[in-house]
Amino acid sequence: MPKKVDHDARRREIADALLGLATTEGLESVSLRHVAAAAGVSMGLVQHYFHTKDEMLEFALQHHAQRREQRIVARLSAAGRPPSVREIVRTVLVEVLPLDEVRRSAYLAGVAFFIRALREPRMAAVLAEGGPKVHGYFAEQLRIARAAGQLADGVDVRQEAVLLWSILDAQAISVVLGERSADEAVATIDYYLDRLFVA
Amino acid sequence: MPKKVDHDARRREIADALLGLATTEGLESVSLRHVAAAAGVSMGLVQHYFHTKDEMLEFALQHHAQRREQRIVARLSAAGRPPSVREIVRTVLVEVLPLDEVRRSAYLAGVAFFIRALREPRMAAVLAEGGPKVHGYFAEQLRIARAAGQLADGVDVRQEAVLLWSILDAQAISVVLGERSADEAVATIDYYLDRLFVA
Repeated sequence: MPKKVDHDARRREIADALLGLATTEGLESVSLRHVAAAAGVSMGLVQHYFHTKDEMLEFALQHHAQRREQRIVARLSAAGRPPSVREIVRTVLVEVLPLDEVRRSAYLAGVAFFIRALREPRMAAVLAEGGPKVHGYFAEQLRIARAAGQLADGVDVRQEAVLLWSILDAQAISVVLGERSADEAVATIDYYLDRLFVA
Repeated sequence: MPKKVDHDARRREIADALLGLATTEGLESVSLRHVAAAAGVSMGLVQHYFHTKDEMLEFALQHHAQRREQRIVARLSAAGRPPSVREIVRTVLVEVLPLDEVRRSAYLAGVAFFIRALREPRMAAVLAEGGPKVHGYFAEQLRIARAAGQLADGVDVRQEAVLLWSILDAQAISVVLGERSADEAVATIDYYLDRLFVA
C-alpha cells in the first residue's frame, strides 16, 4: 500500500523553500524551477501543487502569517495565566520585530512580498487584505482594554489599531537596516504602550 | 568662448534620470548606460561625474532629500506668517506622503534605495545616516513646542521623534500599496498630532 501523502505538509515544504529564497534572493528572480531545487522536489511536483508563481506566493504569504500566529500563541500560552490586553499587544508587536534569525527571515520574506506588490497589482491586493485584518484584531483588543478601563483618555481605538502596526513596521525596517538596535526598537514600542494604556 | 557648464546642474540632471528609473524599474537592474540614455547624455559624461553606480546613488539620495526639503520650505513660506511647531511637523509629514505623482515618484525612489540597502551594506549605511538627522530635527521641534507649553503631558521628545517618522513611513507604504487612501493616511497623522500637542 503506498504511503499516504500529506498534501498540506508538501505544500508547506514548498512554501518554506520559497520563503527561504525570498529572504536570500528576493522574489523577482525566483522561478518554479528554483523553488523545486530548494525544496528538493521535482519541478512536476511543484506544478502539481501550484499552477502559477502567484498562486505559490499567495499560499506562502498565508503560510508565513499562520506560522507567525502560532509563535505568538505559543509565547502567550507559555505565561501560564491569561495575559492582559497590553501583554497580548506587546507580544504580537515584539514577535514581528526581526530580533533573531527566524524573525529576521520572516520579516525579509514579508519585505520581498512588498517589493513584488509594488509591481504586481494582484500581490498588492493580497497584501492589502492583511492590513484590515491586523487593524481589526488590534481594534478588538483595544475595545476590550477600554471596557476594562485600561486605555488612556482620548484614545481612538480604530486609529490606534492602525498606528500600532505603523510603528511596528517602521521599527522592524530600522532594525533590518541596522539603523536601530533591537533594544531601541522595543523601548520605543514600550514607550508607545505606556502612553496608550493606563494599567 | 565655450558656454560655461554648470556642473552641479549636470549632476542633478543625471541624478533625476536615475531617480526616474528607480521609480519605474527599481535600482537593481539600472546601469550607468541606462542612466546616460535616460538623461540624454553620453556614457562618458556620466562617468566623468560619477565613478561608480554607488557614488551616483549616494548623490541621487542626497539630491532627493534636498528637493523634498525645498518643497517643505516652499509650502511653509507660502503661509506668509511664522508657522507653529505643529504646522511645521504636519507639513513635513504630509509632504513625504505619496499624495500626488511627484511625491509618489519621490517615495518610490526612496523605496528603491531601501531595497538596494537590504543587499548593499554601503547603501544601508547611507540610509542609516538619514534616520538620526530626521529624528534630531523632529526632537528639536518638539523641544520648542514643549518650551512653549504645547506638548501633552508624558511626552518623551526623543521617542516621539522616532514615532513620528515611523508613522509617516508606514502610512506612506499603505498609500503606495493602495491599502489606505490619502485621506485616511492624513486623518491618522492628524489624530496622532492631536494626542501629541495640546495647542
